[in-house]
Formats: sequence, C-alpha cells, structure tokens
Amino acid sequence: MDFDYSDKVQRLRAQLSDFMRFHVEPANVAWHREVAAGRYPQDLIERLKSKAFSEDLWNLFLPGLRAEDPGQRLSNVEYAPLAEIMGRVHWAPEVFNCNAPDTGNMELLHLAATPAQRSQWLDPLLIGEIRSCFAMSEPDAASSDARNIRTTITRDGDDYVVNGRKWFITGPAHPNCRLAIVMGVTGEHLPATSTERHSMLLVPMNSPGLTIARNIPVMHYHAPEGHCELVFRNVRVPVANLLGEEGKGFRLAQDRLGPGRVHHCMRTIGQCEVALELMAERALEREAFGRHLADFANVQDWIAESRLEIDQARLLVMQAAHRMDRAGNAAARIDVSAIKVVAARLQTRIVDRAMQVFGAMGLTPDTPLSYLWTWGRAMRFLDGPDEVHLRVVARAELAKAKAQAGRNACHFVPPSQLLQE
Amino acid sequence: MDFDYSDKVQRLRAQLSDFMRFHVEPANVAWHREVAAGRYPQDLIERLKSKAFSEDLWNLFLPGLRAEDPGQRLSNVEYAPLAEIMGRVHWAPEVFNCNAPDTGNMELLHLAATPAQRSQWLDPLLIGEIRSCFAMSEPDAASSDARNIRTTITRDGDDYVVNGRKWFITGPAHPNCRLAIVMGVTGEHLPATSTERHSMLLVPMNSPGLTIARNIPVMHYHAPEGHCELVFRNVRVPVANLLGEEGKGFRLAQDRLGPGRVHHCMRTIGQCEVALELMAERALEREAFGRHLADFANVQDWIAESRLEIDQARLLVMQAAHRMDRAGNAAARIDVSAIKVVAARLQTRIVDRAMQVFGAMGLTPDTPLSYLWTWGRAMRFLDGPDEVHLRVVARAELAKAKAQAGRNACHFVPPSQLLQE
Amino acid sequence: MDFDYSDKVQRLRAQLSDFMRFHVEPANVAWHREVAAGRYPQDLIERLKSKAFSEDLWNLFLPGLRAEDPGQRLSNVEYAPLAEIMGRVHWAPEVFNCNAPDTGNMELLHLAATPAQRSQWLDPLLIGEIRSCFAMSEPDAASSDARNIRTTITRDGDDYVVNGRKWFITGPAHPNCRLAIVMGVTGEHLPATSTERHSMLLVPMNSPGLTIARNIPVMHYHAPEGHCELVFRNVRVPVANLLGEEGKGFRLAQDRLGPGRVHHCMRTIGQCEVALELMAERALEREAFGRHLADFANVQDWIAESRLEIDQARLLVMQAAHRMDRAGNAAARIDVSAIKVVAARLQTRIVDRAMQVFGAMGLTPDTPLSYLWTWGRAMRFLDGPDEVHLRVVARAELAKAKAQAGRNACHFVPPSQLLQE
Amino acid sequence: MDFDYSDKVQRLRAQLSDFMRFHVEPANVAWHREVAAGRYPQDLIERLKSKAFSEDLWNLFLPGLRAEDPGQRLSNVEYAPLAEIMGRVHWAPEVFNCNAPDTGNMELLHLAATPAQRSQWLDPLLIGEIRSCFAMSEPDAASSDARNIRTTITRDGDDYVVNGRKWFITGPAHPNCRLAIVMGVTGEHLPATSTERHSMLLVPMNSPGLTIARNIPVMHYHAPEGHCELVFRNVRVPVANLLGEEGKGFRLAQDRLGPGRVHHCMRTIGQCEVALELMAERALEREAFGRHLADFANVQDWIAESRLEIDQARLLVMQAAHRMDRAGNAAARIDVSAIKVVAARLQTRIVDRAMQVFGAMGLTPDTPLSYLWTWGRAMRFLDGPDEVHLRVVARAELAKAKAQAGRNACHFVPPSQLLQE
Repeated sequence: MDFDYSDKVQRLRAQLSDFMRFHVEPANVAWHREVAAGRYPQDLIERLKSKAFSEDLWNLFLPGLRAEDPGQRLSNVEYAPLAEIMGRVHWAPEVFNCNAPDTGNMELLHLAATPAQRSQWLDPLLIGEIRSCFAMSEPDAASSDARNIRTTITRDGDDYVVNGRKWFITGPAHPNCRLAIVMGVTGEHLPATSTERHSMLLVPMNSPGLTIARNIPVMHYHAPEGHCELVFRNVRVPVANLLGEEGKGFRLAQDRLGPGRVHHCMRTIGQCEVALELMAERALEREAFGRHLADFANVQDWIAESRLEIDQARLLVMQAAHRMDRAGNAAARIDVSAIKVVAARLQTRIVDRAMQVFGAMGLTPDTPLSYLWTWGRAMRFLDGPDEVHLRVVARAELAKAKAQAGRNACHFVPPSQLLQE
Repeated sequence: MDFDYSDKVQRLRAQLSDFMRFHVEPANVAWHREVAAGRYPQDLIERLKSKAFSEDLWNLFLPGLRAEDPGQRLSNVEYAPLAEIMGRVHWAPEVFNCNAPDTGNMELLHLAATPAQRSQWLDPLLIGEIRSCFAMSEPDAASSDARNIRTTITRDGDDYVVNGRKWFITGPAHPNCRLAIVMGVTGEHLPATSTERHSMLLVPMNSPGLTIARNIPVMHYHAPEGHCELVFRNVRVPVANLLGEEGKGFRLAQDRLGPGRVHHCMRTIGQCEVALELMAERALEREAFGRHLADFANVQDWIAESRLEIDQARLLVMQAAHRMDRAGNAAARIDVSAIKVVAARLQTRIVDRAMQVFGAMGLTPDTPLSYLWTWGRAMRFLDGPDEVHLRVVARAELAKAKAQAGRNACHFVPPSQLLQE
Repeated sequence: MDFDYSDKVQRLRAQLSDFMRFHVEPANVAWHREVAAGRYPQDLIERLKSKAFSEDLWNLFLPGLRAEDPGQRLSNVEYAPLAEIMGRVHWAPEVFNCNAPDTGNMELLHLAATPAQRSQWLDPLLIGEIRSCFAMSEPDAASSDARNIRTTITRDGDDYVVNGRKWFITGPAHPNCRLAIVMGVTGEHLPATSTERHSMLLVPMNSPGLTIARNIPVMHYHAPEGHCELVFRNVRVPVANLLGEEGKGFRLAQDRLGPGRVHHCMRTIGQCEVALELMAERALEREAFGRHLADFANVQDWIAESRLEIDQARLLVMQAAHRMDRAGNAAARIDVSAIKVVAARLQTRIVDRAMQVFGAMGLTPDTPLSYLWTWGRAMRFLDGPDEVHLRVVARAELAKAKAQAGRNACHFVPPSQLLQE
Repeated sequence: MDFDYSDKVQRLRAQLSDFMRFHVEPANVAWHREVAAGRYPQDLIERLKSKAFSEDLWNLFLPGLRAEDPGQRLSNVEYAPLAEIMGRVHWAPEVFNCNAPDTGNMELLHLAATPAQRSQWLDPLLIGEIRSCFAMSEPDAASSDARNIRTTITRDGDDYVVNGRKWFITGPAHPNCRLAIVMGVTGEHLPATSTERHSMLLVPMNSPGLTIARNIPVMHYHAPEGHCELVFRNVRVPVANLLGEEGKGFRLAQDRLGPGRVHHCMRTIGQCEVALELMAERALEREAFGRHLADFANVQDWIAESRLEIDQARLLVMQAAHRMDRAGNAAARIDVSAIKVVAARLQTRIVDRAMQVFGAMGLTPDTPLSYLWTWGRAMRFLDGPDEVHLRVVARAELAKAKAQAGRNACHFVPPSQLLQE
C-alpha cells in the first residue's frame, strides 16, 4: 500500500497547477463576463487550448490512444489527481480537451467506431476541433436504468429514423457541437427487461428534425454549453452511423460509465477544495461580535469536518480508480456506484458550510459558491439518483452476507441460564 | 499510489484470520460466561496466548524491537490491517500481546526505559507475563491537554511521592496488572502553559497508598480489565523509577499517541465490519409486513451508507499509518487527530443502524451490538473529545489558508456594472 | 388557539414541582444507593407514596375513574404537563401511582374488567398496593404488530393453559408485582392476518409454570423493576381470568396505546429538560483552552438546538393529547405514531450533546446521562421501531395525496416554447 | 391549552383558500410566463388585488389600524394561519397587500410616522397604490447587528444627505416602488456599541443620487421585484423625512422584526406543505424497479419525517405568535430567534427530499422546487444567519441555568465507596 503519487504524477500535477495558475485562473473573470453577456467565450478558450496542446497537457485521460493520437495515455490512477486540479475552475477541463461529455464520447468511439466513424468524428474530437453530446436521459423515463429509454431508432431502408425527446443533455449549446451519440430502441419486439433492446447512433447535430427545445436552467443557472432538451422528429441518418452493433447500446453505455465517474468525482473533490479554501479565507477575514469567524468553534468544526470528509472521499475515489486500472471497469462497478454517492453528497455539504461563512455574499454570483452548491445538488440525480447507487452497494453487501451465512454465529452469547432451561 | 496490501501483509492477514476463526471465535461464548460470572477468563486467555506465541502471531506492532525480543517488527501500514482483524472480537488483542494500553506502554519503555527498567518491566510485558496501565486522565482536569494533569510527583530524598486521583485508567482490574505508568507534576514552579512541568513515573501496582477506588462502569458496562478510578496517597517509589528525564512527561505522552490511535482506529474498523455483517445477516432473516428487512429501501440505504463510511474511514486511517511510517509520528499529528474523530463517530453510527435492524435484541447483551455502541460513544471523549481534535484539524487548515493569502482571488467575479460605477 | 396551561394545570404543576423538590429529589441518592446494593428501595418508595396519596397527587391520569376511586380524573391535556415534571426523576412516577405499565394496565382493567376482576386487581392497583406487568412482546416475533404474537392460550375445561416466552416485560422484578396481563393466541384456526386471533388473560405472577428467566440488562443496565424474559410452561388459570371477550386482545391492545404513549413522551420531555439543564450548568463551570465551554460557539449551538427541538416536540405531544381528548384515541392514531418517533429520537440527540459537554464523566453512572442516553436508544424500538411508526405517518400522507389528486397542477409551469411545439 | 383555530380563523381560512384556488392558482402559469419574458406581471396582480380588496381579504395583518384604514385587524395568532395559506404561491401575498417588506414598512410608519408622512406614504401603501423597500443590510457590514450599518445620514441645513451602499434590498425593481426606508448613522460621535447611533429616513426612490446598481440574482434567480444593490451618492431629502426621532433607528428596527418573522415563517410552512404534497403525489406516480416510489421505505421515511418536522415547526411558530399577542414583541424576542432558525432549516430539508423524489425534473424551473430550495437556503442568512439566532437562544438558556445554580445537584450520585474514602 502506498499513498504517495508517483513521480510522474507529481511532475504532471506541478505542470498542470502552474498552467492553471498562470493561464486559466487569470482568465476566469473574463470567462464569466462573456457568459454573463450571453456569449460562449470561444476565443478565450481556443487561445488556452492551443497553449495547453503545445505544452502536451492534452487528452490526459484515455490510456488506449493510438500512436498517432495526441495525448498522455494516463491510467485512471494517474489521471484522477489531474482531474482534481482541473476541477478547481469548472470550465477548465475543456482547455485540456478533458471535459465531459466529450471524454466519454471519445472513449466510446475509441471502443466501437468503424474506421470511417473514427476519422469523421473521433479524430476531430481528439484535437478539440469539434464538440459532441451524449443523448441518453429522457423526461418521461427513469433514465438511471438505460433500459427504460423510449426514443425509437427505426430501420427504414438504408437509414435509421429517430423519434423521441431527450433532456439534460450536456453540450448542444456549445458553438462547436457537431455530434450527438443517441441511445434509442432498435429492438421493440424484445422484452422490456432485455439488455439488447437499445443501440447507439451517431447523429450530426445539423440533421433535419433535430431541434434544441431549450437550454434547461439547472436551479436557474443556464450553462453556456447547455443542459438541453432535444427533440428528434423523424431524424434520418444512414445505417453506417450505427455505433457498434445493433442491440449493444446498453452494454456500451455501461462501459462508458466507470472512468467518467471517476473524472467527475475528482473534479468534485477539486471544487470542494476550493470551497474549503474560500471558507477558511473568509473565516480569517470576517468578524462578528468582535472576533474573527475563524475563532468560533462552530466555524472551526465546519472547517475540520470538511477536511475530514474531502480527504476520505478522495481516497475512496482513488481506490476505485486503482481497481479499475487493475481489474477493469466491470470489476469496479460497485466502487463506481459508491464514489458517485459520496462525491455528490460531499459537494452540497462542504459548499453549504462555506456559504454559511460567507453570509449573503454566498448567494450572489460574485463567488463560485452558489454555482457549486446548486450543481452539487444536481449531481445527486444526474447519472442516476443516489438511492439507485446505494441499492447497488447494498445488494452487493447482502450477497456477501448470504455467501457467508453462519460466519458470525460466534458473536451471539445468550446467557447461560437460558440455555439450561 | 497502490491500494493493495503487500504479499507479506496478505499472508499475515490470512494466518491471523485463520487463528481468529479456529481459536479465538470458538472461545467467545466461554469468555463472556466467565466475565458474566465475575471472573477474568485467565486460563482461556493464557492458553490462546501460548498458541499465538508459538505461531509467531505475537507483538505484531513495535517495529523497533531488539533482536532478542519476540515479535514481528511490522510497520504501521503492515500492522494496521491486522489490528482490524483482531478488533473483530474485542478481547482478542491480548491473545496476541497487542492490547491497549500495554502496546503503548511497551512503546514508551522501549523509547525511554533504562536497562534496569527494561528488564524489570519491558521484558515481562513483551512476553505477556505481566500487564500494565497508563495513569494519566483525572476527574478534575480537562485531560485532553496533558498539561492540565494535577497529580503531584514530589521529590523526597531518594524517593518520589505521588499524590492524586486518576480515572478511566484501563487495565488495573486485570489480575496480572503489575505496573502503572503515572503522569504527574514535577515542576510546580513552572508556568501552567509549560510543556516541561510533568514527568512519568513507574509505580508498581502493589505500592502502599495506591488503591483502586472503583472499576467505573462505562454506560453500565464493567470491563473485566477495568476502567478504574485510582487513588494515590503518599505513594512512594525510588527515584530510579522515573521514566526518561524529569520534565519530559508531556513529550513522552505525545510520542506515545500516534501509533496507539492507529491501532485503536483499525480495531474500530474491525468492529464496524462485524456490525455491518450482523446487520446484513439479520436483514436477510427477519421479516416485517411480509417481506424481509433486506428488501426495504431504508434498510438498504443503511447498509450501503455503512459500507461507504467504513471504507472511507479505513483508507484515512491507512493513510495516516503510511504518513507515520514515512515521515514520523510528529509529522502525522494532524492525521492522527483526524482519524480519531472519524473512527469514534463511525462506530456509533454504524452500530446504531445495526441495532435498529435487530430490534429489541440489539439492546440485550446477547449480541455484541450494545457493547459496541456504548463503547463507540465512549471513544468520542476518550483520548480527548472529538471537538479538541477537530480544533487541531481546523487550525492546521486555517494556517494553510493564511500562508496562501490571495490564492483564490481569481474566483471572485463581481458583475461588471459594479466595477464601472 | 391557546398555548397557556389552564389555571388548574398551573396550580397542579406548582404543587407537583414542590413535591418533587422537597420530597422526591432529596431521596434520589438514597434510591440509587439501594439499587446499587441490589435492593428495590421499597421503604423509601412507600413512604413517598403515602405522602403523595395524602396530598392527592395520586392517579393523575385516568379521566374515567369511578366516584369511589382515588385520583384526579385529569384529561390528557391536563395530565401531560404533569408527566413531564414526574419524568425528571425516572423512578418518580411510581410515587404518584403513575408509572408504566401499571397506568396502562389500570386503563385496560377499567375498560374491560368484570366486577370480580376489578375488585381483585384494579382496586389494589388504584391504591398502589400491588404492581402488575403487561406481557406482550416476544423474542421470536416482530411484536410491533400484535398479530405476530405466538404465545398460546388454550382452553382446557374450565381453565386456560398458557405456553410461550415473552421478553422486555417491564415490572416482574418489582417486589409487589402480582399480576401479568398476557397476550396470546386463542384463535389458532383464524388466518394470520385476523385481528381476532388474540385474547388477554389475567395471570397471577405466582402461577405455577410462570418463571422469570432473567432480568434483561438494557445496554448493560438492570432496571430494578426489571425488563424481564418470562417463560410460561403450561400455566393454568380459570376461564374467569379472561379480560374482555375471547378474540378481543388485539383491539384492547390498540386501545391501551394512545394515552400511554403521551405519558411516555412527556416523561421523555422532562428527561430532556434535565439533560439540557445539566449541559448548560456544566458548560458554565468547565473550562478548556482558557475559556468556559459555555463560551464556545459549538456548545452554544448544541444548547440552542436542544431548546428548539425540545420545545417543538413538547408542542407536538400536547397537540396529540388535545386530539385524543377532543376526538378519541382512535382519531389520534397517526399523531400517536408521530410523537413516538419524535420523542425517542429527541432523547438520544439531546443527551448525546449533554454527554459530550460532560466529557468522560458523562459515561459514568454518577450522572443520569448514561442511563438517559441508553434508555433513549431503547425507546427507538420499544412499542415498535421508529420505522413502523414512520410508515404509519407516510401512509396517511399518501392517502391524503391520493384523495387530492390534481390539487397541485397549478404549480407546474413548463416553459412556453415547449408548449408551442 | 387549545390547538384548534377559532371559528373566525377557520372562516377566514376557508375564504382565503377558496380565493387562492379560484383566482390565484389559476393565474400562476401566466405570472411565470410574464416574469420569464422579463416583465413584472402588473396587470394580473392589479386585477387580483381589486378582487381581494373587494372581498375584504386585505391588510390581514396590522391589528392597530385606524378606523378609517382598510383591513382585518387580526392578531398574530389569527393572521399566522392565513400567512401559511398565502405562502403556498410565493407571489400571492401582494394580492392581499400582505407582502414583505411592505407589511413591515406599514407597521413602522404606523408606529412612528408624522401625520404628513402618514398621508404621503402610509395611506397609499395601505391601499396598495405604491410599494416600498427597507434599506438596511450592507455588503461591507455584518448586518445582523444593526449597529454595524455604515451608511451615513448627515444633517446639512434643512436636509439630510445620505451616502452608502445597501444590498439584498427587496422590492426596488417593482414598478410601483416609490419609497425606501433607509437606516443610517446620524450619531457618528457615539461609540460603536451605542444603540442610538442610527436613524431611519424616508427616501423617495426617485431621489437624485439613488441608483439601483443591480438586481442581485439569488442562486441565479432574479426576483422580479428585486433583491437589489442600491447606491446612495449624496442623496438629499428634507429633515421632515426623518422617521421618528434621531437616534431611534436601532429601536425601530427591533420593533419591526417580530411580526414580520412570524409572517415569514408561516409562509415557509405553507411552502413546505406544497413541497410535501408534491413529493407525495410524485411518489404515487413515478416508478422504479417495477414499483411506485411511494412503496419504497426510504421515500416513506422522507414523507413521514417531513410531516413530523412541518407540524412541529408550525406549532412553534404559532406559540411565538401567541406570546407576541399576549406579552408583546419584546417578550417574544427569544421565540422569534428560535422560529427563524427552525423555519429556514426546515425549508431546505423538506424541499431537498421532494427534489430527490422528482429526479432531474426537480432541477428545472418547471416545478416550484428549485426556487423553494434555493430560497430556503437564502433564508438561512437573511435577517441574520442561523448562528446569530442560535446564540441568542443559547444565551437565554445559559442565563436561566445561572439563575438556577444548584437546581440539579440531586442528580449527581457518586458511588458510596468514593464518599467513604
């Protein structure tokens, strides 16, 4: 057991931290000003992307890249601590071509795309030329189980025709978004419980019949890249746009999940670290009843508990990353459910305390806290509500208990007089 | 970073688990029967000790043993996973000569004893011939800061004379307890804040004037080895019984803490694992409203949350052990405060859920839950109340924030119209 | 709406408080010394009972007493604030003939006893000459649903024969306990879901075949009156000992519940008030880091939150008492489930904070805190685990929601562009 | 003690509920559409106001109205249950001329205005012709203690000149807002702890030098009436605009608080009832894993706990209203701090559960939940952070403990052997 980062990771962390400090953080105010003015801060982002690309801080995830692809080929354990650093500024990952959902989409394409699909979509994604979205969740279905997805993908001659409605799809409002990977039903005749009813399809964003119904405000915040509601009305694409085989959508969706959740969780850790730092700084500055807030024992408890919780969560996420590297994504399925719950709950809890230390200022958009708090809340359902993941963990635990029946008989000690009766 | 146990640790864990399963667990009912009858189960323990000694499952802690001493010389990272296993049965550590407070006392003697003290006290402790206690906390002092200790150790010719009252001293009721390491004031003239006012003294338990006023029930439970209230009335020992130098008591007490807390915390983890297993087993058996408790979503949430919390806590404790091994006990001071809080809170939380699944049976002494729950509560003050440790963590965090002043200025984004005013 | 106590209640509260202050509280140490010595403090109790009887502080509950019975005939709203005062010393209610389970048993007998049963059992109970127990819960059944009770009551000629095992039966260890009201199956042939399968039987404690297997320690505390495990082996009583009709046991058990829970909950409130007072007093005395604990903001938060929680709980209990008086016990069924959960959870929460302020002293039996804390925990299953009562409340809420379907349609505001599609 | 509403209150509740159901609720979608389009829904509101005025559902608060003023003259206990009903739709109170901050401002003017001030400001407020704001809190001061306010009100000839910056001022963006009641320093020479340093001034919104710097988004939500940042730069008003005497600002601010907080808290209760109803309805509709969410025990626990918490909170608020009616606002100061904390914490807790049952839909603006949740969070600092109010409650409790020193000595029972030593 070893809790130190490897030398390679330490070096990359230092390099990435410097990049954040000297290039990303100084651009933060400008980014927000642009967004407040209703514009995606494209120039700013492109300038930073070029710089990051040239420093080889690019495609830090995705270990299995081909020799010709740009990127670092890091394992999950190597990448996770970098995701934490990028997470400190919520728009930073795009600078390094490491933003969701493009990372997951690149992974999917890497796994399942045909050579033609690769060169049309994966190559431009890998160099950051285009953006993409992943169109799975639907307003009328409990989307945490992908089998509930109802959008239809119907074969019609050499085309597939897509009909349905998706929501909370991240990315479509990005000016460079060109591709939607759409999950839908191709096996209507199969039973509802089948894992072979769904397929994934590559749908160009400019396909006739595909419209962005709205960019859904999440707790009143409009993300500039969008968490959108998309409508598909007889959207027609050639059969060559199928990703992988027909009926393999569910399986592909499962494969996509693990690493993406580790990334998410580590970005959450980064955001929580920012919130904790802000809380401590504010507590040192602000006074009440003639003393600094930092001198009040309740504020100290909040700070300390935040530190304990963040450190524990980080270790759990890193352990999941380690399992994924060692034993594969499937083997880490329970771990991935576990970290999803832990990270989502962590963020609202930490940021809530930070806001309380900030007072009314914590409500304003002048600090990142109001965004982080509401986004933390959103994470408690996105990718499946916490309760679905807790259920996964519980069932694994119960299965273990069943397998070890009688294991703890030694712990029952009825008093001897009862035995004598 | 590596989350796997080393081969050596895995081998030892397997060996220790087998020993627990084949020797300790089968003796558990007998142990409780003896205790219920008011006897310390000495024969049972000695028989198991011989067996453990012969299998070299002995003195698993204490890396710095001399060549001639029996023991495994494990690092903290190696020892901690074994402490978890021993912790599953709360009286088991003595079988392996790994029980508190003897472990900590052996460590102290190892650090500071003279050759004569060693052969009189350390050698018999290392082979498990005698037991000892550590007499620090006092009823009238906030003992979490050792500087508040008031018992006096006064030089009188070639003797020291001890006067004072101690409580919650673990061990004096053990039939083999021969030694008390007593903390007291030797520097009355020094200011109250000085860390040089106190010394440690080796006091034989049979010294005239030393009496056990009572074995304090902890939440109505009388531990057979005792959490005792001791009275020292003009207890006289030769000056040669001073441990280390005069005025070094505070420093020695500090040094003693770290590893002992890691052991404690890992035993806690072991107890929590037992409680979680019992909860899952009971949930699979017991029915309400026509379904097994394991099918109720609230019970599932409890099981899953317990798993998440235990796994996180274990990792935090292991990380502290790792820091201690790498950088020394002093460097891990904050970590040790952190794990102390996490483990103590964990135990009441996990066991509380398990009891709720057991219903009224959880209140009886027929399962370990009532003991584990009340003992968990006790841990929230023993070795200093949680709040004292949270304060340590908070102050470290605030010091970091002070050192990094301005670090997060980039995160403040007042709206542009305010700037233009 | 009026939140003031009536003049009558205020007068009784003053009288009762004085009695507690001048007679009960001064006897508290003696009571505990006797119990610690293994004796029920009978003389002490009898002396106080005579005094209370002579001051007419007797049978404060039980509004429907006959003219010839001693007692105050108070409504639930009048009695509840007195139960709070008596609850401050946990053994005090017996002094006023107001202790569980005798109060509930008197109520049952008052409702259903024949004249002969009345004169044999109710009259001596009403004057405090004898004590009784209520033998319902069983080790092998989820007793929160009385229909799960398995003890058999079999007709054999002019007798009933009882066989079974009961546990957590309060009272049998009291030296004056003469009667057990036993719940058992008389309708074996009826379906398991029937509410007519059970009956109640009056069983003298000295009946051959009835033994006290043990006084179960609750979290290691042996109550002097006992929470006992009783064994019934062919216990034979005349058919005239049936309470009410055959098959009415379930119904009688339901009727018994409501007022008893209000009493219980108000005693809990009284205990919580004591714990809060002790916490505040200790915080004013004890110092850490050079300041009184009362000056630490976290301790202040605990004190204030305890006040808010106690005051809210008291109001909810009083409202339930009010409903019971106005609309009958059956109409207040949901309220009674609600207060049971609130009070049980309250006690562990408040006392936990108080213990933390007391430090290690809170673990000892020297203060009432350790008893109150563990007893609070027990209350979370006794009379049915919290979860069973939450389920009752939830189902009532869901039934309301069903009945009001569409009530909140006005609150859904999909954005207009979605409507236009 | 009586927990039933009086006949008068029951009649008014029925009338108000009908008005809500037939007039306000059907307008809810239109209200939101207007606001989404960036317009204050003035026509809609005015139409409803006329209707409410004509039904005498007008000025339901403010018991001390003059004979010639329109309104109901209800006590706090009578008004509070109506505030709960109005609170169900967050913009409804204005319809009945019962919205903050106008209610509080009318109360202030009623208490302290000169005849000229009354006819200029109070009369048009009482008939709902104009709106007003209350300009107290400031970005650079811990405004929970009004003595920290820094805005200056300087005498210059026959005028006062105001300079300063205010924020989170509710109301200035309302198209009819004509008046700001401004709190500022008139006694610069007095010590910072003096309660006589501040005065209140009536400042017309169209005064030169007074600008709305921004309508601050609260958790990204822009309230249509505004929570604004106001800048005062040499704003000049005649001395006749002083409200009450110079130096009485602090006192007036205190007087204003109590009833307003009761209103606020009861509106919160109303909002929580809506959230609970929505949660129950959704749980009955939505399925997961083949069962309705209403059948899952964790969802049932959330529903039941919400019911318990809301009912307790309501009672506490009503009790505070009762105390205010009986003993005056000052006597209820602690109660008012208590309910402020309870209500603010309640709202986030209840709505959080409701959102979890709604899944991703709970994040959208399509239901009221996202607004209610973020607004609940805001309430945890507005009118002073929870911690300030907890401190008030704690200090009252500690003062009681001091006054009763020794009261609980009877509860300490050291074991007898310790006494004999």
